[in-house]
Amino acid sequence: MVDSSSNTPPHHVVIVGGGFGGLYAAKALAKTNVNVTLIDRRNFHLFQPLLYQVATGALSPADISSPLRSILSKNKNTTVLLGEVNDINPEDQTVMVGGEAVPYHTLIVATGAKHSYFGKDNWEEFAPGLKTLEDAIEMRRRIFTAFEAAEKETDAAKRRALLTFVVVGGGPTGVELAGAIAELARKTLKEDFRNIDTSETRVLLLEGLDRVLPPFAPELSQTAADSLAELGVEVQTKTLVTNIEDDIVTVKQGEEVKTIATRTVLWAAGVSASPMGKVLMARTQAECDRAGRIMVEPDLSIKGYPNIFVVGDLANFCHQSGKPLPGVAPVAMQEGEYVAKLIKNRLLGEVTPSFNYVDRGSLAMIGQHSAVVDLGFIKIRGFLAWLFWLFIHIYFLIEFDNKLVVMIQWMWSYFTRSRRARLITGKEIIKHVLDEEQTSYKPLHAKQPINV
Amino acid sequence: MVDSSSNTPPHHVVIVGGGFGGLYAAKALAKTNVNVTLIDRRNFHLFQPLLYQVATGALSPADISSPLRSILSKNKNTTVLLGEVNDINPEDQTVMVGGEAVPYHTLIVATGAKHSYFGKDNWEEFAPGLKTLEDAIEMRRRIFTAFEAAEKETDAAKRRALLTFVVVGGGPTGVELAGAIAELARKTLKEDFRNIDTSETRVLLLEGLDRVLPPFAPELSQTAADSLAELGVEVQTKTLVTNIEDDIVTVKQGEEVKTIATRTVLWAAGVSASPMGKVLMARTQAECDRAGRIMVEPDLSIKGYPNIFVVGDLANFCHQSGKPLPGVAPVAMQEGEYVAKLIKNRLLGEVTPSFNYVDRGSLAMIGQHSAVVDLGFIKIRGFLAWLFWLFIHIYFLIEFDNKLVVMIQWMWSYFTRSRRARLITGKEIIKHVLDEEQTSYKPLHAKQPINV
Repeated sequence: MVDSSSNTPPHHVVIVGGGFGGLYAAKALAKTNVNVTLIDRRNFHLFQPLLYQVATGALSPADISSPLRSILSKNKNTTVLLGEVNDINPEDQTVMVGGEAVPYHTLIVATGAKHSYFGKDNWEEFAPGLKTLEDAIEMRRRIFTAFEAAEKETDAAKRRALLTFVVVGGGPTGVELAGAIAELARKTLKEDFRNIDTSETRVLLLEGLDRVLPPFAPELSQTAADSLAELGVEVQTKTLVTNIEDDIVTVKQGEEVKTIATRTVLWAAGVSASPMGKVLMARTQAECDRAGRIMVEPDLSIKGYPNIFVVGDLANFCHQSGKPLPGVAPVAMQEGEYVAKLIKNRLLGEVTPSFNYVDRGSLAMIGQHSAVVDLGFIKIRGFLAWLFWLFIHIYFLIEFDNKLVVMIQWMWSYFTRSRRARLITGKEIIKHVLDEEQTSYKPLHAKQPINV
Repeated sequence: MVDSSSNTPPHHVVIVGGGFGGLYAAKALAKTNVNVTLIDRRNFHLFQPLLYQVATGALSPADISSPLRSILSKNKNTTVLLGEVNDINPEDQTVMVGGEAVPYHTLIVATGAKHSYFGKDNWEEFAPGLKTLEDAIEMRRRIFTAFEAAEKETDAAKRRALLTFVVVGGGPTGVELAGAIAELARKTLKEDFRNIDTSETRVLLLEGLDRVLPPFAPELSQTAADSLAELGVEVQTKTLVTNIEDDIVTVKQGEEVKTIATRTVLWAAGVSASPMGKVLMARTQAECDRAGRIMVEPDLSIKGYPNIFVVGDLANFCHQSGKPLPGVAPVAMQEGEYVAKLIKNRLLGEVTPSFNYVDRGSLAMIGQHSAVVDLGFIKIRGFLAWLFWLFIHIYFLIEFDNKLVVMIQWMWSYFTRSRRARLITGKEIIKHVLDEEQTSYKPLHAKQPINV
């Protein structure tokens, strides 16, 4: 396969993972004298920051995904390989894809994070997280099925549990998710049901620390909490979840233990490193932090392995402030681009200074028309922040036709508050809805009794 | 539940099924003095004629679906009930939803058809049909996974089988599907792979009769066949499928028996009545045809049951020409509207003339820029027919924001030939791709060997 009779073969960079870190590294290596192989388990890049929009029926999966092959089709030095890397061998310089060894000169591992239940893996069944399109479709199914089941339920306590949504975790994902569900219930679905009044829906946002959006400035956390309250979200801070069962969440607030009757719990709390973290530790003696993230050198390489780099959510880079960089898209993008530049410099015999993350700020959307933006030198909130949020998210969507369609859908939903993608799909749908205990059927809504 | 102390209760119409027949009946009953309960297993109306666009990655599921509740939210006399009707009781005038009896004065059954393998149900595993969104996503998964597996395959014969797509059935769905796959392979994916040349893809369209699009005029069948050939589709008429296995299709052409090595077979051949047909036969002694469709009276009612109507694909209405009306959307729409009108007339004591279907023509799209349209008095083909096809399909999409998004996506794809929704999703994806026999990995494409 390798023609060793020719002169020096081009440098081969293998990138594992087509998220923000891996994709931005691959794009930055276009038109250079290296060959690139990008390996991913999925055939598309996913714009994770908008997953909650799929989970709440505002966008379709394809709106926030782009086929990796089409993003990289113009990069003639790049091969996309659909497959799962299950081992690496730093001595041979190969990664194992299925049973096959793929050789590399330089390896970039960008496999990201998965959601984590802090050791309580049995919670996952009752409280799905939001990392993949399948997760988002499962959340969407649960949210819309809860309203359907409530419409049929005549027992008041059960109906109340069906109309209670608990979001665990007050970071950007939790805030955006809780805001979207509240708007959905109070605005989008208002006219759709006959037996229930969806504006009675309770949305609870539980956060362990003393405020939502802990990475933001305190005054913006306050604005976010106020906006959420205005939408009808009950924000409960200093609240620790101690148990999750089929229809009950147990929380601890100070010394007080409380239970919440709910049929829908959504997890936006913790993440931990993807399984590649353990592989790297076993093969390179790399160290990791409590979340399983790999401790990297100032140039994002693994200690003792200058040609193996870790970027994005799998990396713990703490050389800048002593604290690890947050697991957000801008960090992964900058890290991917940095490693690409380092590879190019190294091939030219040049030295690259340590990685330095440029923090351009954080932002979160609360409901359809409000957001908070913290750019460090300026903090904005409300409608202007919302426009800014929109611009940034559309700007970073990879492909132009996605930008176009998402922009139109948002303009449309801005004026109509509609959410087009309210589909309950998946093989289990009937079972899930009809497994709800059937109670006596009321053909028309309680508010306006009409005889049959 | 029923307040029997008041004066005459409003007439209650129960509609089973939210497809074209049921939905158009419900819409036509808005603002009348009847109560309507529409029961469906799914929470959305599906625009089935465009399912093949989802199967080939051009549209997203939400683009061709609208939540039933939102379509009917303004119809205050209408309740939407998510559930499965598993029995009816004409004596009590009730339908059973789960364990619950829902009473009716008039019943409209519009549960449609499912695909049928003419008794060879074991073919379904190897040759999925196209009736639901899940079917379309499964087809999409198989089509795009085949290209991915071909990219990895080094055995020439296996690669050829992976790049061979067989569409069974030369009706509008089969023609549209085959045309779309050929365009996908020859245009959309052309630049995306490194080891395979997707323009070598074979697409075979198998039809038992002597021409494609049998319901159309013969000269339009010829135009369709020519357009398909131009796109690279191999049309094989007078071809009967006698067996389908994991990677081989056996066909009979006259006396000759041939086999086709393929990894992707798509079924667009036969349909049969939904299971409600059998329930109706058992409870009302209704008769059915070979496909299980219920024989209906000239007013679409069941003989002896003047308050039970069957509309759409489940009905066999043969009072007009002696032949049953075809199972297409316009028939279902007109039947639904007719029954709504009959109910209104009956409540006024007026007699309604027999149902009369007004055939406004048939149309099919072949590839991205060509179509055939047969309006009876005029036959058009090519670009003008394509524009007409586009207009009709967008016009009948139920909700305005769907129309808008689909129109933009088509305009976009007209200029770029892109297909945005090329996602391989579903829990089994990794397994399916990686279960392909792994053969030696070639990091860069055979056309341009580059050393690693």
